[in-house]
Amino acid sequence: MPLDYLRDPAAIYRKSFETIQCEVTLDRFPSAMQPLVVRLIHACGMTDLADDIAFSAGAFEVGAAALAAGAAVLCDAEMVRHGIIRRLLPADNDLHCLLSDEALRPKAAEIGNTRSAAEIDLWEDRGLLEGAVVAIGNAPTALFRLLERLDAGAAKPAIILGFPVGFVGAAESKAALIGNSRGIPYIAVEGRRGGSAMASAAVNALAGGLGTNV
Amino acid sequence: MPLDYLRDPAAIYRKSFETIQCEVTLDRFPSAMQPLVVRLIHACGMTDLADDIAFSAGAFEVGAAALAAGAAVLCDAEMVRHGIIRRLLPADNDLHCLLSDEALRPKAAEIGNTRSAAEIDLWEDRGLLEGAVVAIGNAPTALFRLLERLDAGAAKPAIILGFPVGFVGAAESKAALIGNSRGIPYIAVEGRRGGSAMASAAVNALAGGLGTNV
Repeated sequence: MPLDYLRDPAAIYRKSFETIQCEVTLDRFPSAMQPLVVRLIHACGMTDLADDIAFSAGAFEVGAAALAAGAAVLCDAEMVRHGIIRRLLPADNDLHCLLSDEALRPKAAEIGNTRSAAEIDLWEDRGLLEGAVVAIGNAPTALFRLLERLDAGAAKPAIILGFPVGFVGAAESKAALIGNSRGIPYIAVEGRRGGSAMASAAVNALAGGLGTNV
Repeated sequence: MPLDYLRDPAAIYRKSFETIQCEVTLDRFPSAMQPLVVRLIHACGMTDLADDIAFSAGAFEVGAAALAAGAAVLCDAEMVRHGIIRRLLPADNDLHCLLSDEALRPKAAEIGNTRSAAEIDLWEDRGLLEGAVVAIGNAPTALFRLLERLDAGAAKPAIILGFPVGFVGAAESKAALIGNSRGIPYIAVEGRRGGSAMASAAVNALAGGLGTNV
């Protein structure tokens, strides 16, 4: 006997988004940003995530405009890159993750930091940072390093999506971003929670709102 | 001025795992399985996840032995595949995700289900299911479909890692697995929480415990 469950992908998306909108009060978010909040909650299954989402005024509009204008998306982890729904991207935007780049290990050794942090230096060296959508969904060290490089005068991305996760530096790196984003629009989740699914959900929302063109 | 944060990857892993072991009581889990619980918590930043982890007796040992014997890992999503730390795998195990396979859309149309669910049928058609480590980190429909195909007599995987996430079918599909796993060992997280990071963390733990060979 077949099990009883919803099998139509568009219907599943619709019912998911409806459930979230029914259970969560989104009033404190600007209306343009509410679809992004819904997608973040959808990615993790937790309605109380809404309480921890921090953002700068107008961040959603800046990020969406950057993608529409063709900005590259810089991902700290392959999981982030693979969570982005390419069909939603408005300008066939480039997605970069340099974790497997052969220059990464030497760069990490040179700067005395993680490979994830060294990605920031490679993005900078290769002129990728300026105007980019930076999506950090794994490594606190990547977010810390980005702030360090910005303090040192690195080119500014269009927006920082700050979703590193975990027990060492995640809450701290996001607090550093939120406390002083170096003039760059940001969206982040405070505390230990985060992850690649949230980072890619944020990109998907900037790209396509609640579109279900999957 | 450089920011103050931990930069050494091995030290970060070690401090993360120590923090979790300090904050979470793992007594209800068999000692062999405790590293897997730690990795799951590490992947999501939430210590209370421990309360929702369900498993069959001996599941960890079965899964670890399957990987050691060369079992393939079948992933429902590319994010799961990319979260698996290949260096930890004991037998250079094959990792399969068929979401981009050209046979998938026709199969989904044929069975009237999602592409994720149709992956199960492709795994079955291609003889991949038997003895495999199945890691479901995204789609409830994939887990439901797996249970349906098992009821129809499909070959049995070695273990089911059940971590679909979200608001439609995630809790229900995992409850169906836990209520009757069709004789197959399983590890899952009850409720809406889950995700690809947890599914790949479970594989990483079966492969390498708390090894930090990254």
